[in-house]
Amino acid sequence: MSDVILDRRDLSFQLFEVQDTDSLFARPRFEDHSRETIEAALDTAEKLAREKFANHNALSDKEEPAFVDGKVVMRPEVKEAFDAYIRAGFLSSRARYEEGGMQLPEIAAAACKGMFTCVNPSSTGYVFLTAAAANVIRNFGNDTLKARFLEPMMAGRFTGTMALTEPHAGSSLTDIRTRAVPQDNGSYRIKGSKIFISGGENELADNIVHLVLAKIPGGPVGVKGISLFVVPKYRLDNNGHPDVRNDVILAGLIHKLGYRGTTSTALSFGDADDCHGYLVGEAHQGLRYMFQMMNEARLGVGFGAGLLGYRGYRFALDYARDRRQGRHPDDADFSKPQVPLIEHADVKRLLLTQKAYAEAAIAMSLYGYRLVDDIETGNETTSKEAELLLDLLTPVLKTWPSEFGVRANDMAIQVFGGAGYTREYPVEQVWRDNRLNPIHEGTTGVQGLDLLGRKVWVNNGKGLVLLASRIMADVLATANENCKPMAGALQAMLPLIEKATQAVGNQMASAGARIALSNANAYLQLLGQVVAAWMWLRQANAAALLTNPDDAAFAKGKLQAARYFFRWELPRVKWDAQQLINGDDTFADMDPSWF
Amino acid sequence: MSDVILDRRDLSFQLFEVQDTDSLFARPRFEDHSRETIEAALDTAEKLAREKFANHNALSDKEEPAFVDGKVVMRPEVKEAFDAYIRAGFLSSRARYEEGGMQLPEIAAAACKGMFTCVNPSSTGYVFLTAAAANVIRNFGNDTLKARFLEPMMAGRFTGTMALTEPHAGSSLTDIRTRAVPQDNGSYRIKGSKIFISGGENELADNIVHLVLAKIPGGPVGVKGISLFVVPKYRLDNNGHPDVRNDVILAGLIHKLGYRGTTSTALSFGDADDCHGYLVGEAHQGLRYMFQMMNEARLGVGFGAGLLGYRGYRFALDYARDRRQGRHPDDADFSKPQVPLIEHADVKRLLLTQKAYAEAAIAMSLYGYRLVDDIETGNETTSKEAELLLDLLTPVLKTWPSEFGVRANDMAIQVFGGAGYTREYPVEQVWRDNRLNPIHEGTTGVQGLDLLGRKVWVNNGKGLVLLASRIMADVLATANENCKPMAGALQAMLPLIEKATQAVGNQMASAGARIALSNANAYLQLLGQVVAAWMWLRQANAAALLTNPDDAAFAKGKLQAARYFFRWELPRVKWDAQQLINGDDTFADMDPSWF
Repeated sequence: MSDVILDRRDLSFQLFEVQDTDSLFARPRFEDHSRETIEAALDTAEKLAREKFANHNALSDKEEPAFVDGKVVMRPEVKEAFDAYIRAGFLSSRARYEEGGMQLPEIAAAACKGMFTCVNPSSTGYVFLTAAAANVIRNFGNDTLKARFLEPMMAGRFTGTMALTEPHAGSSLTDIRTRAVPQDNGSYRIKGSKIFISGGENELADNIVHLVLAKIPGGPVGVKGISLFVVPKYRLDNNGHPDVRNDVILAGLIHKLGYRGTTSTALSFGDADDCHGYLVGEAHQGLRYMFQMMNEARLGVGFGAGLLGYRGYRFALDYARDRRQGRHPDDADFSKPQVPLIEHADVKRLLLTQKAYAEAAIAMSLYGYRLVDDIETGNETTSKEAELLLDLLTPVLKTWPSEFGVRANDMAIQVFGGAGYTREYPVEQVWRDNRLNPIHEGTTGVQGLDLLGRKVWVNNGKGLVLLASRIMADVLATANENCKPMAGALQAMLPLIEKATQAVGNQMASAGARIALSNANAYLQLLGQVVAAWMWLRQANAAALLTNPDDAAFAKGKLQAARYFFRWELPRVKWDAQQLINGDDTFADMDPSWF
Repeated sequence: MSDVILDRRDLSFQLFEVQDTDSLFARPRFEDHSRETIEAALDTAEKLAREKFANHNALSDKEEPAFVDGKVVMRPEVKEAFDAYIRAGFLSSRARYEEGGMQLPEIAAAACKGMFTCVNPSSTGYVFLTAAAANVIRNFGNDTLKARFLEPMMAGRFTGTMALTEPHAGSSLTDIRTRAVPQDNGSYRIKGSKIFISGGENELADNIVHLVLAKIPGGPVGVKGISLFVVPKYRLDNNGHPDVRNDVILAGLIHKLGYRGTTSTALSFGDADDCHGYLVGEAHQGLRYMFQMMNEARLGVGFGAGLLGYRGYRFALDYARDRRQGRHPDDADFSKPQVPLIEHADVKRLLLTQKAYAEAAIAMSLYGYRLVDDIETGNETTSKEAELLLDLLTPVLKTWPSEFGVRANDMAIQVFGGAGYTREYPVEQVWRDNRLNPIHEGTTGVQGLDLLGRKVWVNNGKGLVLLASRIMADVLATANENCKPMAGALQAMLPLIEKATQAVGNQMASAGARIALSNANAYLQLLGQVVAAWMWLRQANAAALLTNPDDAAFAKGKLQAARYFFRWELPRVKWDAQQLINGDDTFADMDPSWF
């Protein structure tokens, strides 16, 4: 079957009719941009994604990277894709013109990147990791680091990684053991083991720049004693060219369920006590720096998960239109041909649910990217508010698309039936690939604790108040009669969130964090569903305004997906709110010995 | 990590304390049986499962069967397992003593089979398919067929398959095109294509007996024109030995997402117009015969899905006890060691949810097998009622464990975190394997239509009335104070089901089946959750009666899982009932052009 990619009508709708990207063009930084320039960038991205990335998505799943004669061997198409992406300038899509960039708003740059993730998440992994690591060096590295590492990374000559996790500690970064011992020349000697390092070994470029979290002996205990280092695979000579091999060794490739095209590695630093590393920024500030990269990555994970949800949906849609099977329950005339799958109510349910999940996920991700733009180029108030909102919403924007993206893919398999369970069709790979997203860059459990244990209480809960006011603005702006009941239902959720938050706050004071946070997942799900419903109200409102007759069916689809979400999804999480208000103790109370 | 299998304490609890298997020993057929004989059979099954099946579950996933030089090559352990299973007599576990069987009740035979499915669903596929096909020949074949095919199947010399699905028709059996043309000698010539035939090619025994659905030209249209045929891979000589190759050809092996150890095949019958088949029973009755096998298979699919849910849960439990990671949110003392994963509230949530799903799934499957015993060996009333109940519940017993088993496995991966996403740990395979279950033997969509379009209305809805009275009996028998609120909550669901059913009935009359059945999935989910809650009430009631101090923690665990189910799961489906009562038209109303 032919490949699928983001639908351009839908993407334009999301960018311009839902998120009001036009308003950005009034800002000095984006004054040369317009719908036309952004559509042109999307054209380029789409063409490149189709030609250089879509072609090997299945292949590099089937023939995953292997370690042969001391090198990682992977499909040659991966390097071709990497090089083409760099050549087309997408690594610098947000950089200023004078830096050779496209000076695109983040929301538009993200939409371009989405084209690639949608068709080949594994191969895009290498460019995204490189871009994210480069950003950290740009923001926190000194001029020497920038000259020696940032420049070749932006030129695609070096790739980048983020090396956080250690085998014994997983999500618990506090407990990392990698050591960095200062040397007389200002550099450090790194020693330790890292695991699950994506892109940690590859032959795509001349060097690999690992951003490594490590502790300098004598520093503070806990996360305050973590520093960040640049650790290259090859040390550089005086001209900045890769020279001798640094003492960082591939301990093993990890064989994954999906996302197989991106190498996942176990790395050993300093086995021979000669691993050179260079401090990024100040000592003991590493986690803060890394969290900039991490927050960016979390947004990216959510967006990617939504895009894979979308990809599976579109494959299922094509199949359901094409494949004839069975008849309607009120039709017993067996002489007539079978009807297309898409006519069956339960297939429509599966497709509409996928659409509702995937398009809400994409909408909330783009909303997050728009907040990044507001932080960077909004006025003082806009910027401050956007920062508060993005800080609060990051766990939701990472988790909701990840959880619901996988569910959407599960339904895509179901639409295909037996065919969906075979490797001859593409949906099983999408499902396997997407299953990574609720795990990496902070599991769903970690996100729940981050949201309810930290984010909600920042600035005395100002983020949540702001979120409620943003939602209310859309509720009040709702004019269409079909949309008004949705607006009412959404509004009714706000006091429930408030009560649930208060209940947790009271419990925090009376029973302590361990008890109060035991339903953090329910809180995360509640907020996630409300944000998703909000995104559907925004899409429904925007669809109701479409006047072009060519958009009629498209608008009906948006309204129906919104209706699905408000009728079948949102009412269920009232119960989560109630459980939080009740302070349900089922999980807190469960003794490990009872299992 | 060491392998896991069904916990024997739990299994005994399910068999004797929940399902009252003791009461069967008063029936003449089972008078020689006792708890001891059944535990002994389970001992044998467990030993064999551990020694001959667990050893290659991962291996035959990694090295799936391949087609080489005209033969299917698979790991040698598969044949060893097949032969050992036959030798140990489990294929005849329910057969009478005089037939060389163990004369076990169905519920006990199923529990024995569960030991094998739990550790290796792929390899058990071959024996279960052989047993199911043999049953059809036993029940509907004439003496010649029995002598020539049934006997060698029971001896493990021939394997069996069920060949229903055709490439162009999928679930729509009405539309099969395979033809069977009668010959002068009483046999038929078969011509057609079948797909997704599990075990359709293998070298485990001397012959393969395909049970093939086909149409005899001139017969009635639709499902009433379908007949059933025995089509062997090798025709038999006069002594019943495999002789010349029959004209049935392997058109291809299908490469699946999971369940890889069981070959899935595309088969061509009669390419050279010389495929001999033998009618089973009467002409045009094939679907009825096949449905006996199918119903048995549907129960088996549900049970297998629950067992895989359980398997994933136990792996996750072992890992969560063993692996230390992170600290409690109220503990900032980083000098202390990390705590085991199982102490984190969200990990307890994931584990308790898996336990609640898997153990309810196993309970409802065993309830179904007990109904089979009541049909076969109960008195006239018991038998009749059991038949009504099993007929009604089969879609639920197939679907609920399949859907919730996969969800449980998803959570097992989440407990493992990054490790769970690698092929170095066993949970990703369990997840992939289990994903087949909502598809084969009738997808979830097909089960919903079967339930709401047919089963509910049989005998004027008597099955549903009977189900309600059975549930009420357990509600009224609830004595423990911890269980009474659960009983109350369960009771409160009954009028909702009644109203939802009435609403659908009214809609059926007013708007027709196409509209009325458009929410069949919600009805199936509603009934499934209620049956699962019922199984938890039964387990909680039984656990409350345990007096042995050694059972204290076990009983607490059962009560807590029941509490989870009643507090977090059951309340949500009230909304499904409400949507059915509202006659929500979101899916019916969705026009295919709006996607």
